[in-house]
Amino acid sequence: MSGGTVPRTIEWLGGLDGCVRLIDQTRLPAELVMLECRDVRTMWDAIKRLSVRGAPAIGIAAAMGAVLGVRDYNGDERAGFLKKLDEVCEYLASSRPTAVNLRWALDRGRRRAQSVPGHDTAAIKRSLLEEANRIRDEDEAMCRAIGRFGEPLIRPGAGILTHCNAGGLATACFGTALAPLYTAHELGRSFCVYAGETRPLLQGSRLTAWELQRAGLDVTLLCDSMVGSLMKSGRVDLVITGADRIAANGDVANKIGTYGVAVLARAHGVPFYVAAPSSTFDPSTPDGSRIPIEERDPDEIRRGFGPPTAPPDVNCYCSAFDVTPAKLIRGILTEQGIIRPVTKSRIAATLACSEFRCG
Amino acid sequence: MSGGTVPRTIEWLGGLDGCVRLIDQTRLPAELVMLECRDVRTMWDAIKRLSVRGAPAIGIAAAMGAVLGVRDYNGDERAGFLKKLDEVCEYLASSRPTAVNLRWALDRGRRRAQSVPGHDTAAIKRSLLEEANRIRDEDEAMCRAIGRFGEPLIRPGAGILTHCNAGGLATACFGTALAPLYTAHELGRSFCVYAGETRPLLQGSRLTAWELQRAGLDVTLLCDSMVGSLMKSGRVDLVITGADRIAANGDVANKIGTYGVAVLARAHGVPFYVAAPSSTFDPSTPDGSRIPIEERDPDEIRRGFGPPTAPPDVNCYCSAFDVTPAKLIRGILTEQGIIRPVTKSRIAATLACSEFRCG
Repeated sequence: MSGGTVPRTIEWLGGLDGCVRLIDQTRLPAELVMLECRDVRTMWDAIKRLSVRGAPAIGIAAAMGAVLGVRDYNGDERAGFLKKLDEVCEYLASSRPTAVNLRWALDRGRRRAQSVPGHDTAAIKRSLLEEANRIRDEDEAMCRAIGRFGEPLIRPGAGILTHCNAGGLATACFGTALAPLYTAHELGRSFCVYAGETRPLLQGSRLTAWELQRAGLDVTLLCDSMVGSLMKSGRVDLVITGADRIAANGDVANKIGTYGVAVLARAHGVPFYVAAPSSTFDPSTPDGSRIPIEERDPDEIRRGFGPPTAPPDVNCYCSAFDVTPAKLIRGILTEQGIIRPVTKSRIAATLACSEFRCG
Repeated sequence: MSGGTVPRTIEWLGGLDGCVRLIDQTRLPAELVMLECRDVRTMWDAIKRLSVRGAPAIGIAAAMGAVLGVRDYNGDERAGFLKKLDEVCEYLASSRPTAVNLRWALDRGRRRAQSVPGHDTAAIKRSLLEEANRIRDEDEAMCRAIGRFGEPLIRPGAGILTHCNAGGLATACFGTALAPLYTAHELGRSFCVYAGETRPLLQGSRLTAWELQRAGLDVTLLCDSMVGSLMKSGRVDLVITGADRIAANGDVANKIGTYGVAVLARAHGVPFYVAAPSSTFDPSTPDGSRIPIEERDPDEIRRGFGPPTAPPDVNCYCSAFDVTPAKLIRGILTEQGIIRPVTKSRIAATLACSEFRCG
């Protein structure tokens, strides 16, 4: 595998007069279409329509979007420029109001802009772009670090199951849950990846299967209901998923279905790991019971892909996420190393030495 | 609820020159379309394409299909007729390899034909049709008996989860897993039914949600990946599923996903029941490891909703069924009563007093 086959999900091309190029994920897996964003409205729309998705990738998109939003500001008055930047950030934050990384990245850009002294708005703009590129580069570095810490878990010939997409497409490049797989693949190891399709929105089949296949990994797709049978057949040696939020005690909120996979893994003696950068930890949430769970549109279940596949008005249970208790998780892979066992004190110790923590 | 709102899934219309009318289940829930089968090829195709599905309904379809296959035989030589019948039965049996009821019903028709003495092939044909109609009527009676034995399990206000469709649409009428629900509903009891959508072919959303809603029951649909989260929320008090084949030791082959639901039920202390007529038991199969598991077309996973939702050539894990070990099953509801606990000896005792046993 060459590194180039792992998708570069989002990047800034050229200098201040350049543009953001990102993979339009709404077109996958049918076609690989790159979307070029040259103004902030196009970026807002790309985030809103899920052309770019995955918490880390959304953060990068927002930081780059802020540059697009202010680069044509042609005053040379510092306060006016910073006011404009605030407006642009508020606008971008409104695209996905619940995404924590989005605000985190915008705040980081804003702080960087504020730190540049004087009225040279061109210099502030360059700093803002530099910060956006740095967020992207740090994200890739974090993913690669997760990959290095996680790859020893991937034994030759092993079967590794993942759920949803915590891959290159959810980050700048390389992914979180998939990073150990890409790293082991780069090292020449052979193994099988099993991707749960992840109803209702099929991120597993549309995105994970696509990016793994493109990178030359051996991937097999299955319906979420097939995980038990697959594990019973002895083909799964390890599970790795991503995380949307991790509470202080290690309880993990992730895409609906993750909890069921964790229970099945425990019942079959299969180790269950979570991979996430330390910005995913939320020390202010003591445990999983305090994590708010988003409810989604029942039509994602009743007519997920066009024609109705259920009675049009039938009640639906529409949780977007579930919570996997820490006790079912063998370890959490972060860019700082593996937190294992998953306990409150080990998490706190890891976060204490992280420069990337969300704040 | 009036009995009429539970669908009459399959029936023979008229005499020997009549036809089989069945609900084309591939068209649900968008429209209720009746399919008329006048030759054995159409019936084979209807079974293969899942226009008729569910072990008991497939048995009825096969028995009626055998009549369609031999009714135009115009020799008057007994041995030739019976040979033709054997060929027709082999042909029909090839449509769905896992369904034990299919062979059972064909064998029953064959035995009935063999029992008619002499060379009057018209008389043998009439006996064959009579037997097919009897299989259908017995099936409805069995479903109602399962309903009567099972309804005390349905407590007022309870939440009952089912997987796939073992309802009226899987039988002549009334269903197996759904029979206790219909019976409790007829008795005026209120409760909530949760229907797992059952990927890849969505029998839960297309069929179970449709028939329960049509009969006036309170039904909520969910993706298969949501079962763990739903159980953790405390809303599920009982699981009832159907069965495609039950081994001598009580291991149950049923729609893929059933095993995962059973593991989750055990982890959450939720009793897991299976409902099936005694013709579903296969005493010649000692345990679940000997049950052949049908593999299906990977495109059911890759493009199950029409347009491709996965890379077109990605590998898929395509088991149509899984096996739930007897130890995870609290009881098996049959037309003879409840087998509880599920042990080889109790199963043998129940089958011994059944006139419907497979053999």
